[in-house]
Amino acid sequence: MTTRIVILGGGFGGMYAARALRRQLGRKAQIELINDENYFVFQPLLPEVGAGSITPAHAVSSLRVLLKGVHVRKAVVDSVDFERRIITVFQGIQRRPTEVPYDHLVIALGLGADLSRMPGLEEHALRMKTLEDARRLRGHVIEQLEHAQVSQVPETKRGALTFTVVGGGFSGVETVGELKELIDRSLPYYPNIAPSEVRVILVEYAGRILGEMPARLGDYAAEQLEKHGITLKLNTGVVSATGTQMVTTGGEVIDTRTIVATIGNAPLPVVARMALPHQHGRLKVDRTLRVKGGTNVWALGDCALIPLRDGAAERADFAPPTAQFAVREAKQLAQNIAATLKGKSPRPFHYTSRGALASLGARRGVAEIFGTQFTGLFAWILWRSYYLALLPGVATRIRVMFNWLLDILGARNLVQLRPQARPQLRYIHYRSGDTVYEAGHRSDGFYSVISGAVEMERKDPATGEVTRRIIGPGGHFGERLILGATRRQTTVHALEDTKVLVVERESFLMLAEGFPAFREYFRPYMEKRGAQWPPTPEG
Amino acid sequence: MTTRIVILGGGFGGMYAARALRRQLGRKAQIELINDENYFVFQPLLPEVGAGSITPAHAVSSLRVLLKGVHVRKAVVDSVDFERRIITVFQGIQRRPTEVPYDHLVIALGLGADLSRMPGLEEHALRMKTLEDARRLRGHVIEQLEHAQVSQVPETKRGALTFTVVGGGFSGVETVGELKELIDRSLPYYPNIAPSEVRVILVEYAGRILGEMPARLGDYAAEQLEKHGITLKLNTGVVSATGTQMVTTGGEVIDTRTIVATIGNAPLPVVARMALPHQHGRLKVDRTLRVKGGTNVWALGDCALIPLRDGAAERADFAPPTAQFAVREAKQLAQNIAATLKGKSPRPFHYTSRGALASLGARRGVAEIFGTQFTGLFAWILWRSYYLALLPGVATRIRVMFNWLLDILGARNLVQLRPQARPQLRYIHYRSGDTVYEAGHRSDGFYSVISGAVEMERKDPATGEVTRRIIGPGGHFGERLILGATRRQTTVHALEDTKVLVVERESFLMLAEGFPAFREYFRPYMEKRGAQWPPTPEG
Repeated sequence: MTTRIVILGGGFGGMYAARALRRQLGRKAQIELINDENYFVFQPLLPEVGAGSITPAHAVSSLRVLLKGVHVRKAVVDSVDFERRIITVFQGIQRRPTEVPYDHLVIALGLGADLSRMPGLEEHALRMKTLEDARRLRGHVIEQLEHAQVSQVPETKRGALTFTVVGGGFSGVETVGELKELIDRSLPYYPNIAPSEVRVILVEYAGRILGEMPARLGDYAAEQLEKHGITLKLNTGVVSATGTQMVTTGGEVIDTRTIVATIGNAPLPVVARMALPHQHGRLKVDRTLRVKGGTNVWALGDCALIPLRDGAAERADFAPPTAQFAVREAKQLAQNIAATLKGKSPRPFHYTSRGALASLGARRGVAEIFGTQFTGLFAWILWRSYYLALLPGVATRIRVMFNWLLDILGARNLVQLRPQARPQLRYIHYRSGDTVYEAGHRSDGFYSVISGAVEMERKDPATGEVTRRIIGPGGHFGERLILGATRRQTTVHALEDTKVLVVERESFLMLAEGFPAFREYFRPYMEKRGAQWPPTPEG
Repeated sequence: MTTRIVILGGGFGGMYAARALRRQLGRKAQIELINDENYFVFQPLLPEVGAGSITPAHAVSSLRVLLKGVHVRKAVVDSVDFERRIITVFQGIQRRPTEVPYDHLVIALGLGADLSRMPGLEEHALRMKTLEDARRLRGHVIEQLEHAQVSQVPETKRGALTFTVVGGGFSGVETVGELKELIDRSLPYYPNIAPSEVRVILVEYAGRILGEMPARLGDYAAEQLEKHGITLKLNTGVVSATGTQMVTTGGEVIDTRTIVATIGNAPLPVVARMALPHQHGRLKVDRTLRVKGGTNVWALGDCALIPLRDGAAERADFAPPTAQFAVREAKQLAQNIAATLKGKSPRPFHYTSRGALASLGARRGVAEIFGTQFTGLFAWILWRSYYLALLPGVATRIRVMFNWLLDILGARNLVQLRPQARPQLRYIHYRSGDTVYEAGHRSDGFYSVISGAVEMERKDPATGEVTRRIIGPGGHFGERLILGATRRQTTVHALEDTKVLVVERESFLMLAEGFPAFREYFRPYMEKRGAQWPPTPEG
């Protein structure tokens, strides 16, 4: 029977491993790649998607088109049975589990992110990991400009025009640079926003940015970003976040409605659950990329801790989580599997970085190639050319190049494509003193207090008399919305740090329809207000 | 004081009215356009977006860039006070209402859709009204191909490979043609799908398609679609729909997981609420485009019923809801407002259609221009050229043209960008006998029965003994998911036509955290199963 090699993950590591295996082994092995999306994401372009200089479709390529001769399975990996050599997956929208057998397994699932150590950051920060994240960022930024254009409340306008990126690595630096360029090029169309009102902030825990690059380039990048109007906050971490503010380790409270978190790398749950040795959140492999303690199990890319020398201990002794290394690891891994199949010994991976490149926005970049350092426009052109060459597929390359040219010549695309619909149920965090809503506001949800406390203030429209009520955990407010009121009649403030659950009106009515217990619990509250409960469904 | 003219709606009618007013009146009037998105959607290209031959960003243009000199306000219209001449809007994410005064009001809000007369269609059909709809269709179609590629269940595969479009007007015909082309060009990458397994169906209530065009062209279009492998069901309406089937007026039950509804035009709620005269769901205007009974209130485009002659009664006596007419109406409307401001009389709108064009997919089209009829490739080229010329903005025109060329040369983009996340709460309709889920399936939600009844069947793994339980309205099932089970242990069928509410696990836990009454109601069910309730939150 033909050997079955199954690769989990279709990023740089997995996709290039599949290609290299196909080339090495031809039809001598069945090669299958399992990925939860049917496309390969060109990660380094995500900041450009986030800033709208290329459209989302141009930062991705179909895995089926890229990997001819490889069986591509769009599925979510549920678990691996290393004894039976069986992977259990759920395919697309299928609810029946499918078992996939393997002879050799290659794990290239990458890393996830965990922001849960900083209260509120998980709920209120944007990410830059997936294509959807990038698309959401762009829609969110344009939404803030639209909001600032019409806002009459100074602190709301300040929050809408303060954009914060957390993390000064490649992803954070490129995101902040692109973000600033998007804003600068959009402002001429927003006459009510003065350029001086915009604040773009990069927050980094270490004392310098681009820690992976030589100090001189990091300093140059910092200088360029500052010259370009970006505020750098070094030696600064994040303590907590809400929908309107961020608190730093320096004790500063920043009014901001945009927090992009590029920090918090953590193993994906499916990898963490595998009965394999981990270290620093990654799979332990030997120098030949074999997972320690596994049989015919290999790993590469960001999910693997790959030693570059024997007795590796320091951070610099392990392969860094970059596309450049992943592509090289894929090559070595394919050779090693081919050698093993022939009964030969696999060989250790080693590779020395050829250099590093970063874009800073506004046609400035930094680069170090074979030890030589470049800055400015030339480094930026190098950066674009390098990534254009690395893009898989000629059609994609032509499209991206053409769109880059149009972007240099023309106006930035200001269209705000609708971001994902607002979730029907969501948590919101407030800091003590925050306004939850004010009388006269549009009613936007039913609120239930999970922790903390709020004070509700109601002014009688006839007598002008003010009544106050404190609502703590288990209490709720905003019932009038459910009965069809479109405006708030009360003002609510957080008395302490508070977490609430917000339910949209339509969802609340669905719950009342679907759960008799829920419906009956709320009956007295609704009937006290003279309402028919439940209301007759519309439509 | 300068006259304030406010236009509601930024489609063809509203956007061209704003441009024409600006040209007519220069700085003599303040012109403002209010739209709920900050972009103009090029509606005729939506079927192409749905089929992936152009990307979403290329079917839209920024209103701020298109309308220099016009104040663009991104806001949702809440209500209009015609006495005080005040529009109340909610701007972007702002919760505080804003009042916008006007001297002349132009209503160009278009039409909505109402599918509620056919049970299940509202919940299970896709639309083709907005850009998001088109994007969702494309993702959905690729998802069906991915599903069919791996499905082992014949009826599931049949349902996944049956694509139904309801409505044989321009939108339905162009959508079905583009859809077929997308599928045909994608199939080479799905080796497990035979072309003969794919069914694409167009359902039309009348006896012919393209009712707005001469009979000969409608017949030609029908012939072309059938030659291209599309099944036409004429004289056929929709009775009801579920997630896996559609029932027609002919009594046929079609296994299909894709229903695109292009029918059901209905006024938007905000227009229906206005204290203005309506007829056939549209605003009644006189021949000068003034709303009857209003003062300084005008209407045009799809939301207005515009008589083309005095004593208009027949359908043909009114302006059809097409882009071509809307653009002409906009011109006349601008002249009429300008005349009114000078104290002159407005003039009646009249216009005779210059022709009509439709694309049929696969480089075939039908056209009638100045009474001459064209078909085939030439009509298709006419169609593309006409719309390219009509696209606003040179940059967009170049982008679309370039992408069309690349599409003709290269492979269709197979990437399935993630559609909107699945709603946390949703209704599902089942027909009697349908399987809700089977033992061994992935657990995908907690179910509550709203109407109808289901039977749950459980086989004891030790004894093989089967127990059955009937669950009716108010009952619920699937609790094990909430406690962390990832697989179903029971099989559930619908005993009659049934409507359920499905709640995702994470949302159920949010509700249990947010609502003590909810939590306590479920405590006995959960504790009966020996579980800790509520479970300790993860992360």
